[in-house]
Amino acid sequence: MAQNVRSRVLGILVFGALLYPAMTTAQQPALNLMPLPATAQSGTGSLAVDSSFSVAFTGYAEPRLERAGERFLRQLARQTGLLISLKPGKGTKATLVVQTDHASKEIQEVGEDESYVLEVATEGAKLTAPTPLGALHGLQTFLQLVDVSPNGFAAPALKIQDQPRFPWRGLMIDSARHFIPLDVIRRNIDGMEAVKMNVFHWHLSENQGFRVESRKYPKLHELGSDSLYYTQDEIRDLIAYAKDRGIRVVPEFDMPGHSTAWFVGHPELASGRGPYGIERRWGIFDPAMDPTNEKVYKFLDDFIGEMAKLFPDHYFHIGGDEVNGKEWDANPKIQAFKKAHDLKNNDALQAYFSGRVQKLVVKHGKTVIGWDEVLVEGVPKDIVIQSWRGQASLAKAAKQGYRGILSNGYYLDLGWSAARHYAVDPMSGDAANLSAEEKQRILGGESCMWAEYVNPENVDSRIWPRNAAIAERLWSPQEVRDPASMYARLDFVSARLEWLGLTHRIFSRHMLQRLAGPASPAEFTALRTLTDVIEPVKDYTREQTAPAQPTSATPLNRVVDAVPLESDAGRRFGELVDQFLASSCHDSALEARLRAQLTTWRDNDAILQPLAQRSFFVKEVAANSQDLSALGAAGLSALDAIAKGQPAPDSWKAQQLAIVEQVKKPKAQLLLIPTPAVQRLIESAVAGGACASPKP
Amino acid sequence: MAQNVRSRVLGILVFGALLYPAMTTAQQPALNLMPLPATAQSGTGSLAVDSSFSVAFTGYAEPRLERAGERFLRQLARQTGLLISLKPGKGTKATLVVQTDHASKEIQEVGEDESYVLEVATEGAKLTAPTPLGALHGLQTFLQLVDVSPNGFAAPALKIQDQPRFPWRGLMIDSARHFIPLDVIRRNIDGMEAVKMNVFHWHLSENQGFRVESRKYPKLHELGSDSLYYTQDEIRDLIAYAKDRGIRVVPEFDMPGHSTAWFVGHPELASGRGPYGIERRWGIFDPAMDPTNEKVYKFLDDFIGEMAKLFPDHYFHIGGDEVNGKEWDANPKIQAFKKAHDLKNNDALQAYFSGRVQKLVVKHGKTVIGWDEVLVEGVPKDIVIQSWRGQASLAKAAKQGYRGILSNGYYLDLGWSAARHYAVDPMSGDAANLSAEEKQRILGGESCMWAEYVNPENVDSRIWPRNAAIAERLWSPQEVRDPASMYARLDFVSARLEWLGLTHRIFSRHMLQRLAGPASPAEFTALRTLTDVIEPVKDYTREQTAPAQPTSATPLNRVVDAVPLESDAGRRFGELVDQFLASSCHDSALEARLRAQLTTWRDNDAILQPLAQRSFFVKEVAANSQDLSALGAAGLSALDAIAKGQPAPDSWKAQQLAIVEQVKKPKAQLLLIPTPAVQRLIESAVAGGACASPKP
Repeated sequence: MAQNVRSRVLGILVFGALLYPAMTTAQQPALNLMPLPATAQSGTGSLAVDSSFSVAFTGYAEPRLERAGERFLRQLARQTGLLISLKPGKGTKATLVVQTDHASKEIQEVGEDESYVLEVATEGAKLTAPTPLGALHGLQTFLQLVDVSPNGFAAPALKIQDQPRFPWRGLMIDSARHFIPLDVIRRNIDGMEAVKMNVFHWHLSENQGFRVESRKYPKLHELGSDSLYYTQDEIRDLIAYAKDRGIRVVPEFDMPGHSTAWFVGHPELASGRGPYGIERRWGIFDPAMDPTNEKVYKFLDDFIGEMAKLFPDHYFHIGGDEVNGKEWDANPKIQAFKKAHDLKNNDALQAYFSGRVQKLVVKHGKTVIGWDEVLVEGVPKDIVIQSWRGQASLAKAAKQGYRGILSNGYYLDLGWSAARHYAVDPMSGDAANLSAEEKQRILGGESCMWAEYVNPENVDSRIWPRNAAIAERLWSPQEVRDPASMYARLDFVSARLEWLGLTHRIFSRHMLQRLAGPASPAEFTALRTLTDVIEPVKDYTREQTAPAQPTSATPLNRVVDAVPLESDAGRRFGELVDQFLASSCHDSALEARLRAQLTTWRDNDAILQPLAQRSFFVKEVAANSQDLSALGAAGLSALDAIAKGQPAPDSWKAQQLAIVEQVKKPKAQLLLIPTPAVQRLIESAVAGGACASPKP
Repeated sequence: MAQNVRSRVLGILVFGALLYPAMTTAQQPALNLMPLPATAQSGTGSLAVDSSFSVAFTGYAEPRLERAGERFLRQLARQTGLLISLKPGKGTKATLVVQTDHASKEIQEVGEDESYVLEVATEGAKLTAPTPLGALHGLQTFLQLVDVSPNGFAAPALKIQDQPRFPWRGLMIDSARHFIPLDVIRRNIDGMEAVKMNVFHWHLSENQGFRVESRKYPKLHELGSDSLYYTQDEIRDLIAYAKDRGIRVVPEFDMPGHSTAWFVGHPELASGRGPYGIERRWGIFDPAMDPTNEKVYKFLDDFIGEMAKLFPDHYFHIGGDEVNGKEWDANPKIQAFKKAHDLKNNDALQAYFSGRVQKLVVKHGKTVIGWDEVLVEGVPKDIVIQSWRGQASLAKAAKQGYRGILSNGYYLDLGWSAARHYAVDPMSGDAANLSAEEKQRILGGESCMWAEYVNPENVDSRIWPRNAAIAERLWSPQEVRDPASMYARLDFVSARLEWLGLTHRIFSRHMLQRLAGPASPAEFTALRTLTDVIEPVKDYTREQTAPAQPTSATPLNRVVDAVPLESDAGRRFGELVDQFLASSCHDSALEARLRAQLTTWRDNDAILQPLAQRSFFVKEVAANSQDLSALGAAGLSALDAIAKGQPAPDSWKAQQLAIVEQVKKPKAQLLLIPTPAVQRLIESAVAGGACASPKP
């Protein structure tokens, strides 16, 4: 089924190819859509959207579509402030008529038809979709098309034919390491709907918490969750909520490792002696289920049976990652079992366990999905591999006949830029060389929000807006990959996501106000000037650089928790520097803007210092503030040197680069983002006017 | 009872007088409390607030106190980001121990003891209150005391003895003209609790809507509300929610006028022939109940009986305002009745009606409260007058033996500044000359949020933060009246109110983004520069200046709806100008700041113009934008002229004042707030260096 979808995409791309250059390369793209559709053809004029706007459904009908219509109208009212009727109609008389051909599957399947055609003309709009899934996507596209115009709100006349490149487009949220309340989950699902993602992968158990009510084994959540868990009723509600938005819910119960929280109530499942307590630290820990104990399989049979009923999706995620094997090695009974069964090493032991669990999952009517580690010899071909290791691992699996999805490159907690995530393609690297048949096995990808350093207050900001770039990677044609276009549209979609209640923009001001305490307007502006250009340290360095061993009891209320993971101001400054250098340093307007920015930075620390004396949180970033001042001064010095039009002396160069080296060092777990751009200015000054230096 | 409270306040004020000068006049007051307490004495050091923080209750116990403790801890966690235990304890071992002596009344009464004593020391804090009402207030004071310090979060050591000046401190919300959903009501009740208001006056019926489910007369809400009404269960929940926060809920059913919506389902109650439809326009309309029809009193007997059971408060508001009498004059039966009963005019007829209704209210166990008009000869002394007319009306009532509350001067919809509301005192004007006994009859006041031009999106911004200044007027000693101190603390409390979910700050960015559409960062900054210094037209001019007759179907999505009612930036600029003039124009740092601000304004229009071409909302304020540029240029010209140190020529003066006159005219229903300050600069230039010119 995946093949059919993909070949259709390619077919239509040819048809629509004419349109693409304009849409993907302009700084201000004609259409602020994200993800960009497979094809779009501009029409003439626009459809006015005013208080008389209406929507009606025709063809196949179901309550989900009616609810979608109400949600659509509510959202349209919210994003226009118009008093439109919030009741969708039936039939073909409405501003927007939605024609749906037939039902989608009762339980949403991988690769179902999600296509739609949206035609907007001056006199009305028509959305046509084979199934409700396509209708849902088309409604979101229409919402993104409506914007203010010189004559009121309007949607441009056009024709869009659209369908996803990949059938599996997911977001994983770890609500085990930090518990994420349902209202936060729901608004993130709203965000997923807006960018056409279709899988919510719910990471529900970990060393640090077991988050689902089990009626069969209540000690799991009673003793393993600090009372922070979802009841089965809540989960059913959430699944219905997601289904209404065309989103599958795939639960993950990580085993045999990452499972300390299970053992607090059920130490008999473990390979060690216990007793076990809920883990408070972060990392990889020793506790693991005992693969040699038949009671473990009996328990899992019951438990998976219970969860298989609770979660209707056809897939069931068993985790399987990062078992260090220490408890196995220390247990003579397990060692004896390995010998008796000719299991040469712990990988073989885990393969034995995975095989047993996989059979239980199948027994309860589901297909296994697991991390790379579950792919061991002899595992049946119908499992799905979720690859944290990368395209090579995925390609290898595909060659062996396994289906897979990519998550390597989409770990939202690592603090990468949207552009860096955006550049990661499931079909690149080794996957690019797969045969057509093998390529069909690459189902898509999932972004992953691991939760060591997020809580309900800042988790939205760690997911959005960058997740929208990943959503576009998984939905839009492979050729859609211009980062400038992506950033322009991301800015638009990010603002729109706020209307769904997501807090990814406002969180920062609230948290900064808290940590600043009573600050004068000038002081608070200075704090924002600094925090606008710093980002938390990247990848896995946060724990290493922490002032004290971080645990789940560590408050997330410092500056490092209160700034976005990607600095827009830092990125824009870099672009400005590159434009200036590309002008051979002749554009005086650009130079003036650079000078103004650098002067603000240079003078900022003096304004911020009094606040640092009053707030210990601001004090913590005093060195970053001094760095910003030094960087501003260095940048201004470089502009002065460039203006002279001759190579700057070596002594100057040494001095400036020493500043840059100092400033590059992370402080308070924060990086100063404009540093490389200022370095480019310095190098340009050293080169003496050879301004169009390449980016490093 | 009111007398007891007030005489105690005066006693303690003498004791605490020493402290006041420092607290009320400093630019940065030592304590960011709002309302300021009756007395406070500083101690030494501070109490650290960290993750080990706990609260425990001792003495009288009730579930409401336990819930208050949980809410307090949740709020403390939110405003610090600390992971504190959210479970209050019992006994005397905790960081904060709350001692409550005895229960308050089952149904909260006017003038109940709301006092508390809060002692904070380095080793712990103790809150002592005779009743839960005082304990609730004291917890809010503690929350305001906790802030970031050089060593972490802390509360300063001190001793506060506090109680309200007035026993009736209310906020009225009109959820009839525009329906206000319960979640919005709830967050405003949270805001009331934070500033120690204790009466939520709910204006529930109007020409434009009847908002309460009546089981006796369901046509009232079924036909009179456009399906926007509160069910009785919802109302009971809301009353419980308010009671938990020490807040009474007083319902208002306005009669005999302001009642068109009743007549949609029950035309037989009206004085005219009907038929009636829900009113869509704003203003005063003809429909009024028929005071001569016995069936009206039978109906009201039933209805008031039903509502008296639903709303437990001892007071029942019957409105009574603004009957124009036209339906009465046009009805021969009513004319005949007047003659037969020797009712000389419509006032007498309304008095007859009020008297009958008052008896019904008393029959159902309640005391009447009504607007000024209900006070007519012979009305029993136990009614309460809510004065929209002013202190003179209130004083006159008090002299006649009637109790009253002030609302004149506290109408939030008129767009006054916080300082202007703050200056209104219930005991000023004629009320200042009352005898001690008569003064006791002035129970307090209520701010009023009339809802012609508010909806769920911007209503918070029309109430807050200005309502906090009114709350302080009604709680704190009369001597607390320095507007500079008020504004400094208001800024603090306004930020804190955001943690309760109030949207009075964020609404503006959201609405401006919507009306701007896709704007560049520079364009959006320019829009904010403009909108930061404009305010909607004041008092009752909004309808007159509207581009088209406004109705309840008019969207509230224009710039006039999206800016706060009071411009902080405008106020600060005025202060800056006054400081500069007070320096005899010699302070060059102030001059530089003024120049920078004026230059930004002068240059702003050029940046904003392209956006005005793309968005019809921004286009609407294009003239305001040009005005701001002209004002900036005029201000710069004035600074230049001042710098010359000699009187500016008459031609220059004429030119500049012509600009000011032009700029003073409202455009798009918006006023440019810095205009008078620039005018002062111009006048100063004309005076030739006689800079310390007084404020106009």
